[in-house]
Amino acid sequence: MKWIRKIYQYVNYWRSKMKSYAIIGTGAVGGYFGGKLAQHGHDVRFLARSDYNQILEQGLKVDSPKGDFHLKKVKVFRNSADIPETDILLVTLKTTENKGLKEILTPLVHENTVIVNLQNGLGMEEEIKSWFPGNPVLGCICYIGSRKVGPGHIEHQDAGHINMGCLDNTHAALRDKIALDFVESDISVTVTEDLKKARWKKLLWNIPYNGLSVVLNTDTEVIMKTPSSRRIIRMLMEDVVFGAKACGVELESDAIDKMMAFTDKLVAYEPSMKLDYKYGRPMELEYMYEKPLEAARAAGIEMVSVWMLYQQLLFIEASKKT
Amino acid sequence: MKWIRKIYQYVNYWRSKMKSYAIIGTGAVGGYFGGKLAQHGHDVRFLARSDYNQILEQGLKVDSPKGDFHLKKVKVFRNSADIPETDILLVTLKTTENKGLKEILTPLVHENTVIVNLQNGLGMEEEIKSWFPGNPVLGCICYIGSRKVGPGHIEHQDAGHINMGCLDNTHAALRDKIALDFVESDISVTVTEDLKKARWKKLLWNIPYNGLSVVLNTDTEVIMKTPSSRRIIRMLMEDVVFGAKACGVELESDAIDKMMAFTDKLVAYEPSMKLDYKYGRPMELEYMYEKPLEAARAAGIEMVSVWMLYQQLLFIEASKKT
Repeated sequence: MKWIRKIYQYVNYWRSKMKSYAIIGTGAVGGYFGGKLAQHGHDVRFLARSDYNQILEQGLKVDSPKGDFHLKKVKVFRNSADIPETDILLVTLKTTENKGLKEILTPLVHENTVIVNLQNGLGMEEEIKSWFPGNPVLGCICYIGSRKVGPGHIEHQDAGHINMGCLDNTHAALRDKIALDFVESDISVTVTEDLKKARWKKLLWNIPYNGLSVVLNTDTEVIMKTPSSRRIIRMLMEDVVFGAKACGVELESDAIDKMMAFTDKLVAYEPSMKLDYKYGRPMELEYMYEKPLEAARAAGIEMVSVWMLYQQLLFIEASKKT
Repeated sequence: MKWIRKIYQYVNYWRSKMKSYAIIGTGAVGGYFGGKLAQHGHDVRFLARSDYNQILEQGLKVDSPKGDFHLKKVKVFRNSADIPETDILLVTLKTTENKGLKEILTPLVHENTVIVNLQNGLGMEEEIKSWFPGNPVLGCICYIGSRKVGPGHIEHQDAGHINMGCLDNTHAALRDKIALDFVESDISVTVTEDLKKARWKKLLWNIPYNGLSVVLNTDTEVIMKTPSSRRIIRMLMEDVVFGAKACGVELESDAIDKMMAFTDKLVAYEPSMKLDYKYGRPMELEYMYEKPLEAARAAGIEMVSVWMLYQQLLFIEASKKT
């Protein structure tokens, strides 16, 4: 029972030091993970804008194969400045809103505030660090299928795993404490010593499938079953591996084959960018394409096929506006 | 008046030697050029399949800004085997029908038969030569906006220029004689000593604009006015120049800028492949993409952006069929 004792020690230490969370963006990701933390007794403050009134009145509902739950009373705020001082900020907005992120975070960031980014893409943690150089910045790679089906109403479809790392590994103990809170809240977590690698590994899937499903207006199953698009996926993945390597991230030699085999087994799936496109929402192009392209370019590598896909996505995004 | 005398000499020499033409494919290109030749007194035999009956009964109509004309009686054939021995064969089918081309040509190719290819793409002349190694093979790069608006009814919209070259320059005199027939028939013609270069130069436009207008479902004007697609066009052109160079074809250093400036001045234009796609016809992918890619690859160069565009077009073509 030594490990249980150890966990209790951790928990107690932790509880005495930090216990409040702020969810910066109560959508598919923030609503689910924030909801789980609150459901398990954590002090969670939710930032919500469009859904503020409904959440205030009706609380937060989560439908999940792991069990539905309804938090009837939640601490919800319309403006970040109204949120009381909070230990840990979980950034769960879409990256398309990052233009305003610094302004949202500023009133919340005090001396020891921990900022944890749960967004998709590359470079978010570095950007947050540049705004708040004195604060610990962590990143979570989220593997989850969830969506907002109504105001304050999240539908969790499948998966729900988090891989958590630090921008600076001197914060590893902090990372582990937060991970423990997540574990306690019935969220599957792993921790990584190499956040950058974890980010690139997620990009190995995100870059090919998100963009190509938009440009070819299709889903993962059709992409994998059609020889031409399957070849494009492999080409894009090879480019990502190449770009990652230039940035000092060595992905495993069988990473591509494994990622393709994994996707072969998925049911027909529309990646988040495809859904954003389909429902007329802006696509997360900057952090999923531009930042990785810039990073690789700065390291002397042009990911040609990724660049072309990105330009096609920019065209599609621009066409929507006219 | 020496040059007039010279032309007459040419004409007489030529008339005494060869005078019959067979149009292999009476569509937008064959109907127009064949129609012009027939209008100006040449002996022209038209191969027509789907339009055979209408052409037999009503002849061939050409609407053109250069003057409409109606050939009430034309020599039309349903099968190439029924066409009497003919001096010059003009191949004006779309390349998507080239699988059956050898069979169509075989009954028509005798000892001195000249075969002139008017198709778009790369490698057609070489393929024809491989079937009929003893016969002169010429190629025409056609700059014409025309379309079939009904059976035996061609609408010529604009341009109408031909650049003519030989696969083997020992046939230059022959090329000039045929060019003269075209000139006499009110068709603008230039001749080239370098057919391969002329083919690649046309590809410099065809490869980027045809494919991208299909994948992005747009026209040349939108492509040129949107920064992202404009960048893709330049990238594709750079790849084509690169591929051409590997194949021994040195395009002029300002070829890309000139081609872009030319397209900037065009009115909003849907390239032929876009129209094929729009009207559910097969796209000319093999000779416009696969053959140039193969040629460059054989010379050690992968035109990466062209390859990716080609794979996307293959995907779109495959989707249509399901």
